[in-house]
Amino acid sequence: MRTRQELIRAAAEAFALRSYHQATIADISEAAGVSPGGLHFHFTNKAAIAEAVEDEAAQLLRATCRDARSGAHTSLQALIDASHAIAALLSGNIVARAGLLLGQEPTRSSKLSLHQEWAECIHLLVRRAVEEGQLSSDVSPRDLYTAVLAATVGLEALGRGDGRWLTPQTLASFWRLLLPRICPPHRAVHLNPTGTAAR
Amino acid sequence: MRTRQELIRAAAEAFALRSYHQATIADISEAAGVSPGGLHFHFTNKAAIAEAVEDEAAQLLRATCRDARSGAHTSLQALIDASHAIAALLSGNIVARAGLLLGQEPTRSSKLSLHQEWAECIHLLVRRAVEEGQLSSDVSPRDLYTAVLAATVGLEALGRGDGRWLTPQTLASFWRLLLPRICPPHRAVHLNPTGTAAR
Repeated sequence: MRTRQELIRAAAEAFALRSYHQATIADISEAAGVSPGGLHFHFTNKAAIAEAVEDEAAQLLRATCRDARSGAHTSLQALIDASHAIAALLSGNIVARAGLLLGQEPTRSSKLSLHQEWAECIHLLVRRAVEEGQLSSDVSPRDLYTAVLAATVGLEALGRGDGRWLTPQTLASFWRLLLPRICPPHRAVHLNPTGTAAR
Repeated sequence: MRTRQELIRAAAEAFALRSYHQATIADISEAAGVSPGGLHFHFTNKAAIAEAVEDEAAQLLRATCRDARSGAHTSLQALIDASHAIAALLSGNIVARAGLLLGQEPTRSSKLSLHQEWAECIHLLVRRAVEEGQLSSDVSPRDLYTAVLAATVGLEALGRGDGRWLTPQTLASFWRLLLPRICPPHRAVHLNPTGTAAR
């Protein structure tokens, strides 16, 4: 199991740094300190390692959303917290980052879509915020879903070139702008744009 | 000149469909209906064609921003119009789309950054909106710049998988959410979230 994890990590690094097509099986086994035979015991080919990277990235993403949902006092705060947690995950975890990139390789067909996973997390939390009566009455849940999904996907894309786009400061800046629009003042004061963990 | 344009277009299609690394010089010359000798008359190698694609994409983007700036009655409307025009450009123009993708290839080093060009267009228009007194006093220009850049870059990334993210409806949905937050009601009524052209 440990060898398998080391191979997944080494493959994620190679894919993120050199792209899926440029990275070779030899690069990956060497970086993991595993013999080619050892690699083939775990994975039949490069496509199989890429699938394992995506699979682990999806699990990390799901766990991150789940933790944010259970840790916050309202669904709107959970949405803020989830966006911070995903940004932190993408900043600090190469497997998560590589998994997201692999899903966007035009020549691969992914079974999973990490964007889709994240979209579902946002969708669920916006719906719950509506049920909890958190949103201002003139806010369309669909518009809010679109804006949060687009902005967070955009920060990830920008963050590939410059990590500052994925810092808590940048996320907080987005929420500071949005919060007064999406909920009434007496609710907004109870929300922390920098995330619950940062309180 | 026409042959050169045909090669740029064929290369953009090959890069967008099959990725920069997978596309070959032979693919490109064949798709353009140009002999390998004809291709080499215009471009020394694949990297040179990719540079030409990026260069043309940057020119298209700059022209789109310039047109939006000159066609709108206020800088805030120009910002809305520019976001719609860029989305339409990315939906309809393969060279613009491929140019943006090439800039994100981890193994290429681009002289240009199309994200940077777009960021500068937004930056300029937000600054002018401040100078024109268009923004509400409690809106940070920096926060607005961040949100608009992140959301539009995100819509582009999502639009690669599903073109509906780049439709005027989706852009309008973003601006409908944002406008009541960023300018006072007496100004918001004069702004069209679907863009000036759609009036």
